[in-house]
Amino acid sequence: MSSFFGKVFRISTFGESHGGGVGVVIDGCPPMLPICAEDIQVELDRRRPGQSRITTPRKESDTCEIISGVFEGRTLGTPIAILVRNEDARSQDYDEMAQKFRPSHADATYQAKYGIRNWRGGGRSSARETIGRVAAGAIAKKILKLLANVEIVAYVKQIKDIIAEVDQSKVTLEEVESNIVRCPDPISASKMIELIDKIRLEKDSLGGIIECLARSVPLGLGEPVFDKLEADLAKALMSLPASKGFEIGSGFTGTLLKGSEHNDSFYLDGDRLRTNTNRSGGIQGGISNGEDIIMRVAFKPTATIGQEQKTVTSDKEETTLAAKGRHDPCVLPRAVPMVESMVALVLCDHLLRQRAQCGLDLPKFP
Amino acid sequence: MSSFFGKVFRISTFGESHGGGVGVVIDGCPPMLPICAEDIQVELDRRRPGQSRITTPRKESDTCEIISGVFEGRTLGTPIAILVRNEDARSQDYDEMAQKFRPSHADATYQAKYGIRNWRGGGRSSARETIGRVAAGAIAKKILKLLANVEIVAYVKQIKDIIAEVDQSKVTLEEVESNIVRCPDPISASKMIELIDKIRLEKDSLGGIIECLARSVPLGLGEPVFDKLEADLAKALMSLPASKGFEIGSGFTGTLLKGSEHNDSFYLDGDRLRTNTNRSGGIQGGISNGEDIIMRVAFKPTATIGQEQKTVTSDKEETTLAAKGRHDPCVLPRAVPMVESMVALVLCDHLLRQRAQCGLDLPKFP
Amino acid sequence: MSSFFGKVFRISTFGESHGGGVGVVIDGCPPMLPICAEDIQVELDRRRPGQSRITTPRKESDTCEIISGVFEGRTLGTPIAILVRNEDARSQDYDEMAQKFRPSHADATYQAKYGIRNWRGGGRSSARETIGRVAAGAIAKKILKLLANVEIVAYVKQIKDIIAEVDQSKVTLEEVESNIVRCPDPISASKMIELIDKIRLEKDSLGGIIECLARSVPLGLGEPVFDKLEADLAKALMSLPASKGFEIGSGFTGTLLKGSEHNDSFYLDGDRLRTNTNRSGGIQGGISNGEDIIMRVAFKPTATIGQEQKTVTSDKEETTLAAKGRHDPCVLPRAVPMVESMVALVLCDHLLRQRAQCGLDLPKFP
Amino acid sequence: MSSFFGKVFRISTFGESHGGGVGVVIDGCPPMLPICAEDIQVELDRRRPGQSRITTPRKESDTCEIISGVFEGRTLGTPIAILVRNEDARSQDYDEMAQKFRPSHADATYQAKYGIRNWRGGGRSSARETIGRVAAGAIAKKILKLLANVEIVAYVKQIKDIIAEVDQSKVTLEEVESNIVRCPDPISASKMIELIDKIRLEKDSLGGIIECLARSVPLGLGEPVFDKLEADLAKALMSLPASKGFEIGSGFTGTLLKGSEHNDSFYLDGDRLRTNTNRSGGIQGGISNGEDIIMRVAFKPTATIGQEQKTVTSDKEETTLAAKGRHDPCVLPRAVPMVESMVALVLCDHLLRQRAQCGLDLPKFP
Repeated sequence: MSSFFGKVFRISTFGESHGGGVGVVIDGCPPMLPICAEDIQVELDRRRPGQSRITTPRKESDTCEIISGVFEGRTLGTPIAILVRNEDARSQDYDEMAQKFRPSHADATYQAKYGIRNWRGGGRSSARETIGRVAAGAIAKKILKLLANVEIVAYVKQIKDIIAEVDQSKVTLEEVESNIVRCPDPISASKMIELIDKIRLEKDSLGGIIECLARSVPLGLGEPVFDKLEADLAKALMSLPASKGFEIGSGFTGTLLKGSEHNDSFYLDGDRLRTNTNRSGGIQGGISNGEDIIMRVAFKPTATIGQEQKTVTSDKEETTLAAKGRHDPCVLPRAVPMVESMVALVLCDHLLRQRAQCGLDLPKFP
Repeated sequence: MSSFFGKVFRISTFGESHGGGVGVVIDGCPPMLPICAEDIQVELDRRRPGQSRITTPRKESDTCEIISGVFEGRTLGTPIAILVRNEDARSQDYDEMAQKFRPSHADATYQAKYGIRNWRGGGRSSARETIGRVAAGAIAKKILKLLANVEIVAYVKQIKDIIAEVDQSKVTLEEVESNIVRCPDPISASKMIELIDKIRLEKDSLGGIIECLARSVPLGLGEPVFDKLEADLAKALMSLPASKGFEIGSGFTGTLLKGSEHNDSFYLDGDRLRTNTNRSGGIQGGISNGEDIIMRVAFKPTATIGQEQKTVTSDKEETTLAAKGRHDPCVLPRAVPMVESMVALVLCDHLLRQRAQCGLDLPKFP
Repeated sequence: MSSFFGKVFRISTFGESHGGGVGVVIDGCPPMLPICAEDIQVELDRRRPGQSRITTPRKESDTCEIISGVFEGRTLGTPIAILVRNEDARSQDYDEMAQKFRPSHADATYQAKYGIRNWRGGGRSSARETIGRVAAGAIAKKILKLLANVEIVAYVKQIKDIIAEVDQSKVTLEEVESNIVRCPDPISASKMIELIDKIRLEKDSLGGIIECLARSVPLGLGEPVFDKLEADLAKALMSLPASKGFEIGSGFTGTLLKGSEHNDSFYLDGDRLRTNTNRSGGIQGGISNGEDIIMRVAFKPTATIGQEQKTVTSDKEETTLAAKGRHDPCVLPRAVPMVESMVALVLCDHLLRQRAQCGLDLPKFP
Repeated sequence: MSSFFGKVFRISTFGESHGGGVGVVIDGCPPMLPICAEDIQVELDRRRPGQSRITTPRKESDTCEIISGVFEGRTLGTPIAILVRNEDARSQDYDEMAQKFRPSHADATYQAKYGIRNWRGGGRSSARETIGRVAAGAIAKKILKLLANVEIVAYVKQIKDIIAEVDQSKVTLEEVESNIVRCPDPISASKMIELIDKIRLEKDSLGGIIECLARSVPLGLGEPVFDKLEADLAKALMSLPASKGFEIGSGFTGTLLKGSEHNDSFYLDGDRLRTNTNRSGGIQGGISNGEDIIMRVAFKPTATIGQEQKTVTSDKEETTLAAKGRHDPCVLPRAVPMVESMVALVLCDHLLRQRAQCGLDLPKFP
């Protein structure tokens, strides 16, 4: 029941890091959307391992194949299946993990839950699973762009205690992509890269915070009660590997303000109702209010590290483990497109849900 | 599509703050559970308005009626419908709100989404909707207690900048309930109450943080990928009115640590695999590891305040509003049972899901 | 998991025949629909017990109350809860059934499944549960009528071996409602009523077939593969108490034809693609083709009869049972509005689903 | 939303008849099930085209690849993705269909719904889509066999007016597989084959009825109200291409009996509650009663025939069409494993659902 996401625009991912491959089935995609493998590949390349010296050196081209649902460059309205084959499976790196549980990783809990696990490369718990999400996210982004001009930009806001200065109203995808750590503040970016380089040599790892903006989101997306837009975004982002926290708008810091300080008072911008501030983060009562949606996700330092750690074997003996394998010293640069994708999946689903219930007018595909 | 929650143990809430009433339908509840209206009323009384001087003076007894699904003190396995009638509807307090949108409230977004809203008391966006959740949560708690001895304790951890000192390993429900602010640290509790009293006189409001523990959660709950236990908990808690942030285990603070500092190394406690620390917050890879589940939720200061604020009318004129009505100067004391209930609903659903897929052995009801 | 129906226009029914009441929660209803309790009551009165001498003499007014989701005569877009209280509970009629399983009824299987059952009046398996469906169906019908001019007409086509002659292209609701058996062929209707009168005196019961038409269904409703329109209709109708068979268009009889005889060849009616015949029953490839949707449902003779039958007690002793209680000698006259309601629920859900995925243009509510 | 089926044991199929391939993702499969590609291939070979002279001569090996979810011969509990590549794409056979709508086929309705269709071989409406169902069904069958000893046997009961005589209590898979038409009555089988041979030469097609038995189904599967076991079976079987009717137990014929004749009276078989007759078809009140589940599905004659038929082009001109391509003159022999698969998927889902809610005891996998 757990590999499905979304209600109207619904995806199902499959695959382990070692095995035949990974992928996604997208159900409920509007027909006639112009789409091709290249649209998807661009996003996959942003999350690909081996893209820079600060990511895992594991080399995989992650080339996607559209198996179904697209015909002569247009979506058919039927399920879109996308497959990426696994390559470069240096499974011997993982032999030790057949026996030893990696601390703060999913090895022990998968074993406890299922009585079995694919211990090669973490199996289903590998970040490789997110390929399916990013592929589906590429399609969701295109729908949002073409139907509602929605733009989604995520970036690294913080690595350990290095905090970037970012002007939320101006930051662009180009600025984000201008460096390998995906931080649009060049000075902070340099410091972050330097720190990651250092920590990699120490066989250690780092965490941090990704901030994500969604601009031009139509008024009225999100639903009262359980499927509040921020609730669905929280679930989407807390389902990413290594995420430990989520906040919207003023978030945890907003708890320090009084209501009179925190409230976003209204004004009229021509005919349009707007707020003077945006501590709500673009969502009020679970529903988008037309201001930028602003959220942050905390990612812990990568669990798999080369340093020796205390652990226990599946035969219940205490031992130590120094992970071999090839791992990211910091997941955040590659997590940026994952965050964008999950946000796109949520918004696209709610866009179609709003059209279902309330009859939102949307243009036709070009 | 938005008033349903859960997959196997599934609830659907209904109702506005003014109108016939509010309630819940619970589907998929195991049969033969001993339950009566009193079990539910106890929890409803914890979230009832008018329970103390620091909550809204709105007086409602919130008496629940079990309409169906229970027979001679046992659940039938069929849907349990629970209804609470609305009383004390001083709708005239809301007349002004028929025209004026309350800042940072759901008035404007409901109007934009639906083209209509029940402006009396906030309608569906009122915290009154959570009655259904708390009623269902009471049943979920009882199932968890009887089948798996799970205990859920939430408490106010912080109001504005007053931070309570709480020993997570020892705190009890009795300590939480020992004062009206539901903070188990008596010294902080006094300060919090004092501050709320003060802010109420200023016609202003406060926010803060609730911490929640779930103890004795069986190993193996939660599923990989989208329905990770922390993802479902995040959605559950971010669906509560006024919540702005969620974190699990080390949360946002954990981003400041290196992997070697953050990882929870394993040891053997007799035959049981345990972790030396619990920065994971009881969940690894989306699946419970048997340690205490620890999470925190940020609540913004109440949006409805008595001070005059700038706003706009539904006829698109700029104006000001000083809310009349009767509102909580701080939602946190009453939100404590809401948090517990949402956590119980998630855990109960995953308990039954684990039984479905993996055959978890559970005892019979007494 | 089993009391929910529909994906976008979704309902959840609750309640047993004896207890607080029965009802329904409707989620995903478009906002601004003009609706009032009378719209619903009209349909409930058609399925009410005691409406004529050929139905059960059990007297219940089945008065509905709209608890939520409607404000000043319009739907809010939030969940609509509708409650009908139980009355006239002659539970003593059922005392014997606390011990004895009624043959071909749900008593034994509920007991086996749940280990408990509400033996008064059949509990959840009572036809009384369909009140919630008919109430929700009244709303679905109104949406279909106002947005797409869809008309749904069901009638008794056959009682035992009495087969009515009905012109599918002309039959009206008024003709159906012109007699107590709800058969629009007056000659057959008289025979049917006579036969039901006779069988009731024999303490026996009758079955038959209900035919249902849906006219003016927009092109393109229904989805490929699992949610084919006929598949969802089949599930909807086979979920009604006592139904034993479903067919669409040519149905079972169509198996006797060759492809060249069975196929519906196309022609142009002005600009509109139409079929010369309608053996498809208005659905091709799971999707509506604009012709009338035509289906039939078989209902078995009522299981509860006054004649003595062999059975077994819950204590595992063989015995006999002659049901007391007050039961319909033939469920079909009261099942007509149930059939219409289930068809309306399916079509309304698919109408909104088509709008979600493909952007179906629909008018605004008046 | 339409390519998903099941709630706990849930599948999602994808793929068109011409394109990259077809397949299925299975979510919620219990872990540790011994399974290999051969288990699946056996069933795929039963539905493969070109298996005998009475099926389509289209030659495809339909070799399946398990992409994920299985490790060292056991299921992991994670999604199982199965892919079958398309071969032998004589797309030129379909060139004419790019313009002309085949009567009683899905061409026109897909075009109307989506504004686009993959006209090669019917695209998603091709029976080739059922490969994913049969692959998933093979796994469901194995689970049912190992956990509950359930046996599912389907066979051709009728082709046009040739009705087989079959002893439901004794018929075996071996008898079904003993001839190419999959009818266990050898005399009728010969007549059926002869008739199909004849009709193929006439470029025409035939329909008929498949009967399906499920034996040893545990007591208590199925849920009240909407997910009655017969309702879910009806949906499952009415979602198969070309199906026009469904009945359970006495079905349409049962409407001719009186209640006193139709009811299945109870008796005790040792300690076990059984019924003297089985007109209920193994299900009472929507829940299995331990007797054999017996159902029938009507399949219309194949829509695609070589004879010339009147039709209309997508440019709205009246014309005629004599289909080229290679098609089954009668779908029933190949539909037998499809029927079994859909029944297995429903029963497997309900088996796990019963374990979720009521705690059904099931053995461990060997």
